[in-house]
Amino acid sequence: MSGIIATYQIYDQVANLEKRAESIALGLTVGSWTNLPQNDQIQLLKHKGKVTSVRVDESAGNRTKGIIEIFYPSHNFTADLPAILTTVFGKLSLDGEIKLIDLHFSNDLLALFPGPKFGISAIREKLQVFDRPLLMSIFKSVIGRDLNYIGEELRNQALGGVDLIKDDEILFDTCTSLEERVVQGKNILQQVFESNGQRTLYAVNLTGRTFELKEKAKRAAELGADIFLFNVFAYGLDVLQSLVEDPDISVPIMAHPAISGAFTSSPDYGIESSLLLGKLVRLAGADFSLFPSPYGSVSMEKSKTLKIAEYLTEPNGLLKTFPVPSAGIHPGLVPQLIADFGNEQVINAGGGVHGHPDGPIGGGKAFREAIAATLSGITLEDYANQAPSLQKAIELWGVRS
Amino acid sequence: MSGIIATYQIYDQVANLEKRAESIALGLTVGSWTNLPQNDQIQLLKHKGKVTSVRVDESAGNRTKGIIEIFYPSHNFTADLPAILTTVFGKLSLDGEIKLIDLHFSNDLLALFPGPKFGISAIREKLQVFDRPLLMSIFKSVIGRDLNYIGEELRNQALGGVDLIKDDEILFDTCTSLEERVVQGKNILQQVFESNGQRTLYAVNLTGRTFELKEKAKRAAELGADIFLFNVFAYGLDVLQSLVEDPDISVPIMAHPAISGAFTSSPDYGIESSLLLGKLVRLAGADFSLFPSPYGSVSMEKSKTLKIAEYLTEPNGLLKTFPVPSAGIHPGLVPQLIADFGNEQVINAGGGVHGHPDGPIGGGKAFREAIAATLSGITLEDYANQAPSLQKAIELWGVRS
Repeated sequence: MSGIIATYQIYDQVANLEKRAESIALGLTVGSWTNLPQNDQIQLLKHKGKVTSVRVDESAGNRTKGIIEIFYPSHNFTADLPAILTTVFGKLSLDGEIKLIDLHFSNDLLALFPGPKFGISAIREKLQVFDRPLLMSIFKSVIGRDLNYIGEELRNQALGGVDLIKDDEILFDTCTSLEERVVQGKNILQQVFESNGQRTLYAVNLTGRTFELKEKAKRAAELGADIFLFNVFAYGLDVLQSLVEDPDISVPIMAHPAISGAFTSSPDYGIESSLLLGKLVRLAGADFSLFPSPYGSVSMEKSKTLKIAEYLTEPNGLLKTFPVPSAGIHPGLVPQLIADFGNEQVINAGGGVHGHPDGPIGGGKAFREAIAATLSGITLEDYANQAPSLQKAIELWGVRS
Repeated sequence: MSGIIATYQIYDQVANLEKRAESIALGLTVGSWTNLPQNDQIQLLKHKGKVTSVRVDESAGNRTKGIIEIFYPSHNFTADLPAILTTVFGKLSLDGEIKLIDLHFSNDLLALFPGPKFGISAIREKLQVFDRPLLMSIFKSVIGRDLNYIGEELRNQALGGVDLIKDDEILFDTCTSLEERVVQGKNILQQVFESNGQRTLYAVNLTGRTFELKEKAKRAAELGADIFLFNVFAYGLDVLQSLVEDPDISVPIMAHPAISGAFTSSPDYGIESSLLLGKLVRLAGADFSLFPSPYGSVSMEKSKTLKIAEYLTEPNGLLKTFPVPSAGIHPGLVPQLIADFGNEQVINAGGGVHGHPDGPIGGGKAFREAIAATLSGITLEDYANQAPSLQKAIELWGVRS
């Protein structure tokens, strides 16, 4: 049947789980049932929510964690994410300890969403890099800096051999404009390519008022923007989807998780990270999804990060989104990163590139060396004997074993 | 100085609070400071975040709750809510146990936001009701129903004497369209007005894809829509602001809190309810803000609801937004509601209107009687002797004393 199965984590007494689930299934659809006249029941049957599963997850004293699943028929909502999220977690988000864990879309519904316009394969084509994780670095401390400074930083990062460079997500069009950064970036990265054959794509932060984003994106696309970084949770998943669906905006989009922690961080409330940063971000069409890595100080449980990556890349009829586990990444972590997330990922570092003793050029090189070592099955320590940038990185940050 | 002071609740050891605050203030602005060359410090000073307050709120063992305040200069962001929220709570929302409690805007920044286009006074003018709380009822169980059914429900609610009737927030344009409901509603409410002089405004649910909302709102405005109900947190505060700022959409907007619980419900993560449903909803321009009442089963702590109402109505240069404490409201609660929220509120009921023994007509009458009694200083029990609808309501639901 066409519709959505929503999975929730709730707390209640075991005896009440079933009743609570029934009350949600009715309350968020037809309102009531047993007291309806039979004619109304016949008319409304196709709109009625249904409890499809109720199970006890953990029990401790009076406090039982239950996992319930409820089916919402497509007849009840239009096929857009605001309507779907309002249906399955509108009022309910305010109803005590409840967390939206997952959404399962029927295939006909899924087919109405774009998914990534480019996806992992087309990004690899652009870069001509097919057999290793991509490497990205982040501008550091660019707030308040002028275009020249940003240009030099861009050049140095590219010279280190990174595939992608992204704006800081808090860089807005104050000191420099998106258009200026795109034009300058294009020139500098072309110069680097001509000098050493290294291709690098620049993800520029697409910001501003919602209803001006499309025009701004189109201008930037005309100027040759490589990728848009987008703070999707500052706007809404539907805005991301609209940018992706616009045929005049033929630029990959990198979703940044800014603000998403306000939804995902609590164990008992809000929305599960794998649903938000994995499944929904892919459905709406991001080509890359950043999320906290399990290694750094701003970290997420490893099982959650792996679930995000799974949702971004599992076969579901949509193109694949690049997982980008972020924060706390240094060259010594590369073997662990590849063991955990495989080849289909972007290794993304800020401090781990800029903090290298030889600066961002050395940092980028050290990462590329660490990737080459890991894919050759050589330990970083052994490889470092012939790789001075990696050697210095290991001396500074160590190797995660 | 032009900028925003953000207040956060964090947990850390007392000795670390100050250091943590400094690290946030730098990390979310210029990145680093003490190791910067002096020339850079001179250039970047106006972009540097500043810790303006650090205090211990509660201490229990190793776990200390701290309240910290950080100033972010306007130089760092464009004057839009996506940029502001990304600056003050983008990455930070993912950084462990931290909750964004409040934002204080400098006056020059505040002046760039519209606030309500109509506000409490102009809504009262439309209704010609100046001296009592307004009364609203909510459609119940209308999912899957046709236009005739909705029309009859609308008429019955209006005949009970309510000032406002709102769509269910999960009513999308599937079985009926916004346009159909607006046109039919206008006719029916005009008929009721001609029959008994009762004015009622109908808040129709504005839904669909983000980039189609403006055109849809303009068509509905031309058809005579009274008010738009809007699931602002399914879209984004900036979308609300843009609807308000559009001169061709001259229709009051009622913000529904659907999905907001995913931000506000956790005590340790996310965004404080008074900031989201109070201050920011007003800043972005809603004329009404619904939030959970402190009385029902879907409830919020009373102090939090009062703070929301305070932010919606305190003098700040913007027009006032009607507080609408919702859920669990019946006529017997009216004295308590008025004691808590005063005259400048909308008393909003679903079951408390429809569940009346005489149906929605009796329910509306009972509420109007309860309001009249309370404002005359008469107890509901005494007033009910000459008010049969109120009498029946009290027998069913009792009086909150």
